[in-house]
Amino acid sequence: MDFQEELKERTRHADEVVCSFLPEEEGQARTLLSAMNYSVRAGGKRLRPIMIESTCRMFGGDLRLAEPFMAAMEMIHTHSLVHDDLPAMDNDEYRRGRKTTHVVYGEAMAILAGDGLLNLGYETAARAYCLCGNDASKILRVSKALQILAEKTGISGMLGGQSLDVELDGQPLSREQLTYIYSHKTGALIEGSLMIGAALAGAEQDQLDLLEQIGRDVGDAFQIRDDILDVTSTLEEIGKPVGSDAKNQKTTYVTIHGIEASEAEVRKLSERALEACGRLEAEDPFLRALLKYLIDRRK
Amino acid sequence: MDFQEELKERTRHADEVVCSFLPEEEGQARTLLSAMNYSVRAGGKRLRPIMIESTCRMFGGDLRLAEPFMAAMEMIHTHSLVHDDLPAMDNDEYRRGRKTTHVVYGEAMAILAGDGLLNLGYETAARAYCLCGNDASKILRVSKALQILAEKTGISGMLGGQSLDVELDGQPLSREQLTYIYSHKTGALIEGSLMIGAALAGAEQDQLDLLEQIGRDVGDAFQIRDDILDVTSTLEEIGKPVGSDAKNQKTTYVTIHGIEASEAEVRKLSERALEACGRLEAEDPFLRALLKYLIDRRK
Repeated sequence: MDFQEELKERTRHADEVVCSFLPEEEGQARTLLSAMNYSVRAGGKRLRPIMIESTCRMFGGDLRLAEPFMAAMEMIHTHSLVHDDLPAMDNDEYRRGRKTTHVVYGEAMAILAGDGLLNLGYETAARAYCLCGNDASKILRVSKALQILAEKTGISGMLGGQSLDVELDGQPLSREQLTYIYSHKTGALIEGSLMIGAALAGAEQDQLDLLEQIGRDVGDAFQIRDDILDVTSTLEEIGKPVGSDAKNQKTTYVTIHGIEASEAEVRKLSERALEACGRLEAEDPFLRALLKYLIDRRK
Repeated sequence: MDFQEELKERTRHADEVVCSFLPEEEGQARTLLSAMNYSVRAGGKRLRPIMIESTCRMFGGDLRLAEPFMAAMEMIHTHSLVHDDLPAMDNDEYRRGRKTTHVVYGEAMAILAGDGLLNLGYETAARAYCLCGNDASKILRVSKALQILAEKTGISGMLGGQSLDVELDGQPLSREQLTYIYSHKTGALIEGSLMIGAALAGAEQDQLDLLEQIGRDVGDAFQIRDDILDVTSTLEEIGKPVGSDAKNQKTTYVTIHGIEASEAEVRKLSERALEACGRLEAEDPFLRALLKYLIDRRK
């Protein structure tokens, strides 16, 4: 199977897994459940669940244990999108061509839908315990994965990055601040996804550390690529207004370092990430291809 | 020690435990951390942590395991208050005489502070694993407690109740809807607190079921008592405007059933809860006194 075909198949499977953990829209709280499901079903590339599955597979883990975490990660990622789009935050009315959650369900329900998805993430991840029986080593692996999930989502991860982004909105950023926002707001869940799959497969701490470093480089490269595309693409290519960063006077890697240095940085991060992949004790050609694809994309 | 003295001492201890798990306000995300700490330090009776400690103690559990859960429960409870106070929700500017989080830190940061507290709740609860070593039975108890926490917080618990409250805001409620809101928005975390302490002590499922029922009755009685006090108290007694429910045309247990039937219902729930306490395999005079105190209060 070539990479594009395999990506399509893995995306389909990840989507199926994620949706299988969504609640039935019934009972007194059905509007909340419907708002939560609407947000998750709005689509997306399911990249984080795919990463969890990949590293669990490459370290020889039980893929059934990975499934609750694939769903949990996507719920938590969606939580962040729903709250990011709120009027008090980015005030976005559309995402991926669909009306955002607060436009459809109102602001109060969108706040609760985001809360509901964050919480359901943990409720869902905790369901992995039901698959462990009395197998202590499996229980320990699930506990480790749960700790990684919480740490990468929280104040030292994604939410920390979002908070600095919100706090400095409209102000010029220092290099240090920009790096912090990139590696936390975007990078943390990518790091977490790569680590969780491996942790569920019982990988050692040094392997988790390597995956964390790979995730950080890929997250940074992904974000810098975004900045480059905002300047160099045409509207048709990326399907959203180009040059919006400059128009909004937003500090990006490109506004600080210029296009050429940004391209060089992406190359550096990409090479370092792929080199680190080579140092892992396990090998997965698909994961390497996926990381390359994320960094090299032209839209 | 008489009850009031013991309550004071346990409150002081619970407050100390909760605050010991709060993050240092440092690093790039320090504004977020400060907003989170502000909300938790705003005070409160720490009733839920006290309940966790009580049932863990009465079933002979390791109180060190209970501590992360005491803090986690209070963080999650505070998360719900911060989001409840937001302009898109109840739009409250003061809580317990202090400015609410969004008034001090802005709306966007208050949304993130609520998210941060919900997530830190799970991060903190998961720290209990670090106290288990390789003791499989302890690890299983922590996992069970974590599952209870997530279930009682989420769509079938507190957040479910909040969503119906938000959805029907300003509309007359049916008895069924009112019961659902009371038992979920208020009751779920009380049920969860009583259950978590016992689960950490390794109590059997039938004991957890009894505690769940006790929590539900106490939560309902607590809420109906609130409705009664809104009609019968004077401003000086409860320190907030009285008769506000009637003025806001809010459906309460009293507006549906009248004062007399409401008092009778509180008595019935209270007796049933205390009778169920007597059927538990363990006994704690403090817990009985606490439940009675919550139900009988006159302000």
